[in-house]
Amino acid sequence: MDHRPSTIDYQLTIVKIGGKVIDEESDLNLFLSGFSQLNDPKILVHGGGKIASDTGKNMGIEPVYHQGRRVTDEPALKLVTMVYGGLVNKQIVAKLQALGTNALGLTGADGNVMPAKKRPVTEIDYGFAGDIKAESINGHALKVLLESGFMPVLSPLTHNGQGSLLNTNADTIARVVAGNLSQFFDKVQLIYCFEQPGVLADLEAKSVITNINPEKYQRLKTSGVISEGMIPKMENAFDALEAGVQLVSIGHFADITHLALSEEKGTKITLG
Amino acid sequence: MDHRPSTIDYQLTIVKIGGKVIDEESDLNLFLSGFSQLNDPKILVHGGGKIASDTGKNMGIEPVYHQGRRVTDEPALKLVTMVYGGLVNKQIVAKLQALGTNALGLTGADGNVMPAKKRPVTEIDYGFAGDIKAESINGHALKVLLESGFMPVLSPLTHNGQGSLLNTNADTIARVVAGNLSQFFDKVQLIYCFEQPGVLADLEAKSVITNINPEKYQRLKTSGVISEGMIPKMENAFDALEAGVQLVSIGHFADITHLALSEEKGTKITLG
Repeated sequence: MDHRPSTIDYQLTIVKIGGKVIDEESDLNLFLSGFSQLNDPKILVHGGGKIASDTGKNMGIEPVYHQGRRVTDEPALKLVTMVYGGLVNKQIVAKLQALGTNALGLTGADGNVMPAKKRPVTEIDYGFAGDIKAESINGHALKVLLESGFMPVLSPLTHNGQGSLLNTNADTIARVVAGNLSQFFDKVQLIYCFEQPGVLADLEAKSVITNINPEKYQRLKTSGVISEGMIPKMENAFDALEAGVQLVSIGHFADITHLALSEEKGTKITLG
Repeated sequence: MDHRPSTIDYQLTIVKIGGKVIDEESDLNLFLSGFSQLNDPKILVHGGGKIASDTGKNMGIEPVYHQGRRVTDEPALKLVTMVYGGLVNKQIVAKLQALGTNALGLTGADGNVMPAKKRPVTEIDYGFAGDIKAESINGHALKVLLESGFMPVLSPLTHNGQGSLLNTNADTIARVVAGNLSQFFDKVQLIYCFEQPGVLADLEAKSVITNINPEKYQRLKTSGVISEGMIPKMENAFDALEAGVQLVSIGHFADITHLALSEEKGTKITLG
C-alpha cells in the first residue's frame, strides 16, 4: 500500500547518482532504500566514484592526462569496464534485488541500449571516450525492458557498435536517456542526486535555490553563484528540458523520495 | 539467407565457453563469429579463464585455499564481480553486438535470473560460493528476454537475494539453466565448448568418442579413459539430460556451428 500523496504523477523517473554515494556503502544503502520506494517505472544511472581510481592505483594503472584532460587509454577502459560495468553496477543491482526492486544492470552494449561515437581526435585524443546524443539512444529497448518488469541500472559505459566499449559521462547519459524516453512517456522527470541539498546560493549557509529557469540561470552564472562543476550539470538539465523532459531536480541523495515527489527539497529546474 | 541443413531444429541452444577461448582474443573472436550464426533463440554462458587470477595478481589479491579447495573470500568476490561480471561479460557483449547479435549480459542478480544459496559451511568454508539448482533458476525472466529479442550472456555469478553476489561454476550454470528452460522449450540442446575436439579415447591421437550414454560412461570411467576434469562435465551433461534437455554435446570452440547442427563433430551425450 502506498499512502504517499500522488499530486505529482510522473510516468517515468530517471535518477542519477555519483561520487560519495557510490564510494560509501552506508550512503549507498540509504539512497537505494529510498530509491526502491519510488513509483515505477524508473531508471537508475550511476557514475564511477573514487572506487575506479582507487582500484586502478591498486593495479598500477595511473590516470593519463593530455593537456590537462583525462584520457581513457586502453588500460583505463579495462579498468572502468571492470569497476563501472562490473563491481559498482552489480553491487547496486544485488542490493536493489534485496530491496524488492527487479533491477537489471546494463552498459550501452547490452541490448545495444546506448550506441555512441568515439570522440573525434582534435588537439586532444580522449581515447575510448564515447559521445552520445538523445537521438542515438535505443529508447525502444529500454521501454521493452521497463514494460517487461525490469528496472534498468545504467553504468557510464557506451559502445561503438564495432566491438569496443566507450567511457561516457553519467550526467550526460542520464540527460540523453531522459530526453529520448520523453518520446514514449508523457511526463518524464530527471533527478540528479549529489552530496548537497541542491544548488546553493551560499556554500557556507547551505541555502538552497529552490527554483531555476534559464533567465535566472544566466543571472546566477553572471554573478558567480553558479560556477565550475555546477555549470555542466545545469547545461545538462536545460538540454533535457528542451528534449521534452518535464522537470529536472537537483538535490541530496538522502532526500530522494522527497525529490521524486517534488516536495520541498532540492532545486527544481524548469524552462518556465 | 541461411543455407545450412535444418534437419535438427532445436528450439533453444545453450552454449558454454571457458578457459583459453576467453583468455585469447583471437580464439574468442573465432568462437563468437561462429556462435553469432547459430539459429535463435540461444544463450551463452561464460566462465572466467585465467584473466581473473592474472588481474588478481596485479591487484595483489592472492587466491585463498582451504584444505586444498579454492575459497571465495571478500577480495576474491570483488575480483570476480569485476572480471566476470564486468570485463569478460561486457567485452563479449560488445563483440556480439558488432556481429549483429543483440546480446545482453547478466549476472544472476540482474532480473533475479539466478538466485542461489551460499554454500553451507561444513569442514570447509567456501566463502561467497553459490549453489544453484534447476528449480531455482528464474526461467520465466530469461524467456521474457529471449522473446523480447535479447540474447542473454550469463556470467558465472549468482546472488543470495540479500544483497550479495556469489561465485558459481559456469558448467553448473549452463546445466541448470538448460534444465530449467526445457520446461518452456520442447527441444533444448546444451553445448560445452573447450579446447579439445570432444571427449577423447586417446589423448595423443586425439581420437574423439562420438557418442556416450550412461552405460558407456560407466565403462569409460572404470577403464580410466574418462577421468579427473572430464567427470564433473559428464555428470553435468547427464543431469541436464535427466532434467529434460534433449542433447548435450562437448567439442572444440572452433567447431561451434557444426556442433550446434549435430554434424560430425564433438561428442554427443544422450540417455539412450
